[in-house]
Amino acid sequence: MSTVTIIGTGNIGAAVAGIAAKAGAQLQILAREGEKAETVATPLGAASGTIGDELTGDIVVLALPYDAISQVLTAYGDAFDGRTVVDVTNPVDFATFDGLVVPADSSATRIIQEALSGASVVKAFNVNFGATLATGTAGPLPTTVLVAGDSTQAKDAVIALVTAGGLRGVDAGSLKRARELEALGFLQISLAAAEKTPWTGGFALIG
Amino acid sequence: MSTVTIIGTGNIGAAVAGIAAKAGAQLQILAREGEKAETVATPLGAASGTIGDELTGDIVVLALPYDAISQVLTAYGDAFDGRTVVDVTNPVDFATFDGLVVPADSSATRIIQEALSGASVVKAFNVNFGATLATGTAGPLPTTVLVAGDSTQAKDAVIALVTAGGLRGVDAGSLKRARELEALGFLQISLAAAEKTPWTGGFALIG
Repeated sequence: MSTVTIIGTGNIGAAVAGIAAKAGAQLQILAREGEKAETVATPLGAASGTIGDELTGDIVVLALPYDAISQVLTAYGDAFDGRTVVDVTNPVDFATFDGLVVPADSSATRIIQEALSGASVVKAFNVNFGATLATGTAGPLPTTVLVAGDSTQAKDAVIALVTAGGLRGVDAGSLKRARELEALGFLQISLAAAEKTPWTGGFALIG
Repeated sequence: MSTVTIIGTGNIGAAVAGIAAKAGAQLQILAREGEKAETVATPLGAASGTIGDELTGDIVVLALPYDAISQVLTAYGDAFDGRTVVDVTNPVDFATFDGLVVPADSSATRIIQEALSGASVVKAFNVNFGATLATGTAGPLPTTVLVAGDSTQAKDAVIALVTAGGLRGVDAGSLKRARELEALGFLQISLAAAEKTPWTGGFALIG
């Protein structure tokens, strides 16, 4: 049985908690200050706590906005070593809504991987709107979770979790592909903001 | 009635010719040396010729691989002035299959627009596999053509053509969004090459 820690109790954190619970994973939910982990954790029978508690998951999902990531990296540092760390962020520049805050030739995932050299960082869930993760469908198609990273073992663990949780998990390539996944995430958000696709929809990958 | 010139007789050129014919556009098909424009043009009753012939379309679709674009820009130069020029390219680095050949903070469309200051350049059709343009469906969903550029008039002309041709046309934003469209095009090609989605499929936008 996999062990999963989810840091963050927002839209995506709650949806990924639901997938992990359905997969039968042993779950730990850690809230940020001011959040209530129980709102996500209680119905799933998961352990709940706050950032700073000891990590119990072999897979740790950073279900946080990009600007909240650095404080978690500071809080845990080497405690991430040996774990699979899942980055779900879309580092959109919300001041301009016209690009990303990470360098054009890099990605949030690359930056997190460079900060956590002892962990295996993968990108996942960033091109899935929360509702498509919760329902398992994106319009008429099954929800596909695209996973990118340099560790095949880490990607396989996330894909196995997603599959056991009832969704389709797909290996989208190396860590370099996180850049394209973040471009796709940003494009999808901008299309939803412009009412060209519903917030319950977005892009679906044909299987 | 719109007038459309399509330069290139490959997969995408033929599919866009079909859309334009269905839309009732007056069509001109220009082949590259060694191609036969008639193979596309004859069934549609379009005018056919070769690169170097006078352009008749208000909309000119560059249905060519990225590395063939520069010779067309050289061949026509100022003849593009005042026209809507449609860039369909995915400038993938096929030597490495691990990135694009355009700078990370730019796009093929940006480079073409800078070369053609008197034309309005838009990105379109690059995230649609040929089969989805020909059939009008991407899996269970209608095919959506995403259009990006800085001229609203040019985008509206392309969206009107696509709509009259039976597909869904969507304004994907300014010319800067061509970067995200090229990232999406590359990601989609890499997923198809890895057999994660069929070459008749790819990503579909939920409406």
